[in-house]
Amino acid sequence: MKLVLAIIQDKDSNRLTDALGDQNFKTTKLSTTGGFLKAGNTTLMVGCEDDQVDDVLDIIKDNCSQRNQMVAPISPMGGNADSYIPNPVKVEVGGATVFVLPVDSFIKF
Amino acid sequence: MKLVLAIIQDKDSNRLTDALGDQNFKTTKLSTTGGFLKAGNTTLMVGCEDDQVDDVLDIIKDNCSQRNQMVAPISPMGGNADSYIPNPVKVEVGGATVFVLPVDSFIKF
Amino acid sequence: MKLVLAIIQDKDSNRLTDALGDQNFKTTKLSTTGGFLKAGNTTLMVGCEDDQVDDVLDIIKDNCSQRNQMVAPISPMGGNADSYIPNPVKVEVGGATVFVLPVDSFIKF
Ligand code: NI
Ligand code: NI
Ligand code: NI
Repeated sequence: MKLVLAIIQDKDSNRLTDALGDQNFKTTKLSTTGGFLKAGNTTLMVGCEDDQVDDVLDIIKDNCSQRNQMVAPISPMGGNADSYIPNPVKVEVGGATVFVLPVDSFIKF
Repeated sequence: MKLVLAIIQDKDSNRLTDALGDQNFKTTKLSTTGGFLKAGNTTLMVGCEDDQVDDVLDIIKDNCSQRNQMVAPISPMGGNADSYIPNPVKVEVGGATVFVLPVDSFIKF
Repeated sequence: MKLVLAIIQDKDSNRLTDALGDQNFKTTKLSTTGGFLKAGNTTLMVGCEDDQVDDVLDIIKDNCSQRNQMVAPISPMGGNADSYIPNPVKVEVGGATVFVLPVDSFIKF
């Protein structure tokens, strides 16, 4: 048994929880702030068998990898709309920091 | 030294914390949501010596086991109170998902 | 790789996070309540290499150790200010409870 701790961006949290749930992995969400990732983040705990760790990591990778997103910049206030054509800007979003912890025992009551 | 992580229902949290405190086990409560248990849940962290793990697990079992509770269903709005006799309904409450983690070292400052 | 879990007082949290960040240690803050320490507390997670654990512990010790603070007691309401000279009172503040956990693997996506 392993305990996977994944620190991810808030915006990826629901998609990851759904994707893990589709493969019958139960998650517990901890409210967290700051540090490992700049934007608002969430820590998910996922318990799994040793031979399922790679599956869990794949699902995290597929849903939370750092990626570029094109964002339309906010046009300057009072700008002349006719003459101003904003270029979309690339920003990095997502990303996951994952710790796989050994588990001595796992019990359900 | 071990770190016991117990994910339990909110409603069992105070009772468990009290019961653990009576045996001098200190707990830290993490705000958590969703996943392992359907209803609002809480994650408790309990540090203990290796030979105390069974005691901690017993206390969790005694205070958080999944159990049936008889609940009076809510009577339909506008129903005729004279003619409507609600039968109590059995619902499952409680339950605990517990991870016992190895600890390399434990320090107090 | 190790995962250091430090349960500290809220009031020491920002100073510790800053001091760890100065040495390039990234922290994630979990909202926690009660138990190990009496006052409002915070749990910080810090991932580090095995040979950096002592550095992390030193920084925690330097910023969160239990210490005495002189506090001016609140003067009794309606007391005669001329005749009442409050003596500062020593109170214990700070303190840290630290678990160092082994990590099987550490991955960033
Ligand atoms: Ni295992
Ligand atoms: Ni031990
Ligand atoms: Ni290591």
